[in-house]
Amino acid sequence: MATIGVFDSGLGGLTVVRELRRLMPKSSIIYLGDTARVPYGTKSEATIRRYAVEDAEFLLRREVDVIVIACHTASSIASDYLKALHPETAIISVLEPSVRAAVKASNSGKIGIIGTTATIRSGKHKSEILKYGDFHVIGKPCPLFVPLVEEGLIEGQIPELIAEMYLEQLKGQIDTLVLACTHYPLLKPTIRKVMGDDVTLIDPSEEVAKVVKQKFDDGEEKGTLEVYLTDIPPGYLALIEQFLGEPPDSIVRVSVFE
Amino acid sequence: MATIGVFDSGLGGLTVVRELRRLMPKSSIIYLGDTARVPYGTKSEATIRRYAVEDAEFLLRREVDVIVIACHTASSIASDYLKALHPETAIISVLEPSVRAAVKASNSGKIGIIGTTATIRSGKHKSEILKYGDFHVIGKPCPLFVPLVEEGLIEGQIPELIAEMYLEQLKGQIDTLVLACTHYPLLKPTIRKVMGDDVTLIDPSEEVAKVVKQKFDDGEEKGTLEVYLTDIPPGYLALIEQFLGEPPDSIVRVSVFE
Repeated sequence: MATIGVFDSGLGGLTVVRELRRLMPKSSIIYLGDTARVPYGTKSEATIRRYAVEDAEFLLRREVDVIVIACHTASSIASDYLKALHPETAIISVLEPSVRAAVKASNSGKIGIIGTTATIRSGKHKSEILKYGDFHVIGKPCPLFVPLVEEGLIEGQIPELIAEMYLEQLKGQIDTLVLACTHYPLLKPTIRKVMGDDVTLIDPSEEVAKVVKQKFDDGEEKGTLEVYLTDIPPGYLALIEQFLGEPPDSIVRVSVFE
Repeated sequence: MATIGVFDSGLGGLTVVRELRRLMPKSSIIYLGDTARVPYGTKSEATIRRYAVEDAEFLLRREVDVIVIACHTASSIASDYLKALHPETAIISVLEPSVRAAVKASNSGKIGIIGTTATIRSGKHKSEILKYGDFHVIGKPCPLFVPLVEEGLIEGQIPELIAEMYLEQLKGQIDTLVLACTHYPLLKPTIRKVMGDDVTLIDPSEEVAKVVKQKFDDGEEKGTLEVYLTDIPPGYLALIEQFLGEPPDSIVRVSVFE
């Protein structure tokens, strides 16, 4: 039975854990959320890379068999670097599975990507999609989406106006939209309303969980879920509930250097 | 001539530097913005305290004569702790001067405080105001205000709706409102529109600069301004321009442990 390590800049990556638990209920999962330094998406590439290296090393010290990068910003900027640093370790980023799903879903060949400023600026989704052929890719950063979700403002006039502002330039231009940030799937009804029913929305947490399940066998008895956080912020239990949907077996505050 | 050290969780504290430069143009300023770990306002008290200690020690290693805490979150949660740790150092937090100005401005004795979740949760403004007498204090966290300002959304329908949402419970209840976060004064026109003309808005950066000027003599020749940042994020020059209004003499990326 494989022990699955998952890291994210904060709590949003628990959506990936939720999918993994659904598909592989008998596997043990160790989750690291770098809540002391969240968010990553507004920071420089050098800093994001450094944080991702520290996060991965934390999981490796706990002898995980695979590292899943649940954070789209870290996936976009640091996954190649991490794979080069740890060639002996299976490292699965949330990026490739979501790109593959988008390519498969798109009929027109016109794909939109929304994510943090750092994710979109990296151009990594675009370059990965272009490996599959002649696609037209439009990236758009949506920096207010994460704070909206963390405020619980996921439906209604304010999120709709903000979604209109960000997505206007994508309307009618694409047939597939990748929600390339852990928080964005929670805004699905609002994004759907703005984009219309004809656009396929790709939820990367589902896609990455499928890939892990293909590569690793599930265990034989109920798997445990340990959650490590670099900070225990106020209101964290409500956010864990929102993203994970169940209480973990343990929540421990750690330094990534431990 | 005193060398003034200023620290903040990010770039917003440069509004304090702008006021200091206006009042004390012949003093040298060393500014530390902890952009690698921004924001502080959503994190736990323990983590905020640790970060503030590291920030202060960074400035002390550069032999500043006074430390100005420009960050309201750090002021609310860590200033007493920092003063106890460094009794030999003059430490001026942005909190006390703004509280004093609010108490002076209020006729009804009803004062509102808006800030980050951590700032409001600390109750520090309230307890400081109550030292002046029998005031009624209402605190309200406004977590979306910082991302709005960083998105450049300071006027128009979206910021107005969000300001309405947060400030509704304060309308008609107070005659003085403390903008207890470095970013909030940039939303003054929107806050003014929602709150009406009869409410006095307290801009703490002006208040803290006055206190520093009272306590220290200005220098004899043009003062320098060195800016140290723990991360150089994309778009940082536009934000520096927005908060500071002038280019600093130098911008250096550092670790707070250096």
